Amino acid sequence: MKYGVVLFPSKKLQDTANSYRKRYDARYALIPPHITVKEQFETSNEELETLIPTFRDIAHKLKPITINVTKVSSFSPANNTVYLKVEKNDELKTLYEHLHSGPLAQEVEYSYIPHITIGQNLSDDEHLDVYSQLKLVDINHEEVIDRFHLLYQLDNGSWTVYETFRFGHE
Amino acid sequence: MKYGVVLFPSKKLQDTANSYRKRYDARYALIPPHITVKEQFETSNEELETLIPTFRDIAHKLKPITINVTKVSSFSPANNTVYLKVEKNDELKTLYEHLHSGPLAQEVEYSYIPHITIGQNLSDDEHLDVYSQLKLVDINHEEVIDRFHLLYQLDNGSWTVYETFRFGHE
Repeated sequence: MKYGVVLFPSKKLQDTANSYRKRYDARYALIPPHITVKEQFETSNEELETLIPTFRDIAHKLKPITINVTKVSSFSPANNTVYLKVEKNDELKTLYEHLHSGPLAQEVEYSYIPHITIGQNLSDDEHLDVYSQLKLVDINHEEVIDRFHLLYQLDNGSWTVYETFRFGHE
Repeated sequence: MKYGVVLFPSKKLQDTANSYRKRYDARYALIPPHITVKEQFETSNEELETLIPTFRDIAHKLKPITINVTKVSSFSPANNTVYLKVEKNDELKTLYEHLHSGPLAQEVEYSYIPHITIGQNLSDDEHLDVYSQLKLVDINHEEVIDRFHLLYQLDNGSWTVYETFRFGHE
């Protein structure tokens, strides 16, 4: 099965992201707005269960994370994904590192850029149009996220939550 | 905010349900296939936090639940919802009662019929057509569910998981 780990921002921020995703994100219906903190990885349910204590330890060890959303940005020219930029602070970096080391080590293709996707699979023309509008939007939002979620993917591409881990909890 | 509590069945059963939902369930994109175990309720995030220990106690007190899916059924003539019937056993009844008493008490309109919706908002003709086909499908599936999930609803009608509670865990 395919698994991944995400932060869900507040309802308010998810609603804001969805107001864009509805129009610009082909994966809108497959997962709520999120910040990926561990890239997709493939494992069996049995093996996953052996990793649960590691996820619990990480949650227990770390404190809730403050995130700052500062602007709309784009991965262009790498690809036409438009996103809410989440500042890469030490707390996010530490979480990401913990979730990619020891028994959770995995190869990753890109360096980590925390973000909330609001548009993807756009044609070049659409991207130019959408991004030139959205990059002018004034976004300045700070909030605290106190948990992360481990998800698995269904055959239709959508994601279901397997388990929630609260920071600072045993 | 609007909250609810559900069981997510195994990936296998979710994939089966989705193969029908894709065609017959207008709410397909809003939530993964699930068994509702606490009806929607309205509360603030602050008040919800005061209920979390109650959810934890319930999870701790109860054991994983065996569910048996036995056939496709319909709520017609009450409404045109078609569902996978989940046998109402003592474990499900106990969970439902715990999730509707004490600080979690709430008025409910109907008696509890555990089910996984696979079709809804069908016209009478569609319902007749779909149900007459699906009620012939031979489904006989048993599995154990070891956790429940507390969810909240976003403005677009979709649901995000707030927290997971494992049965038998503190």
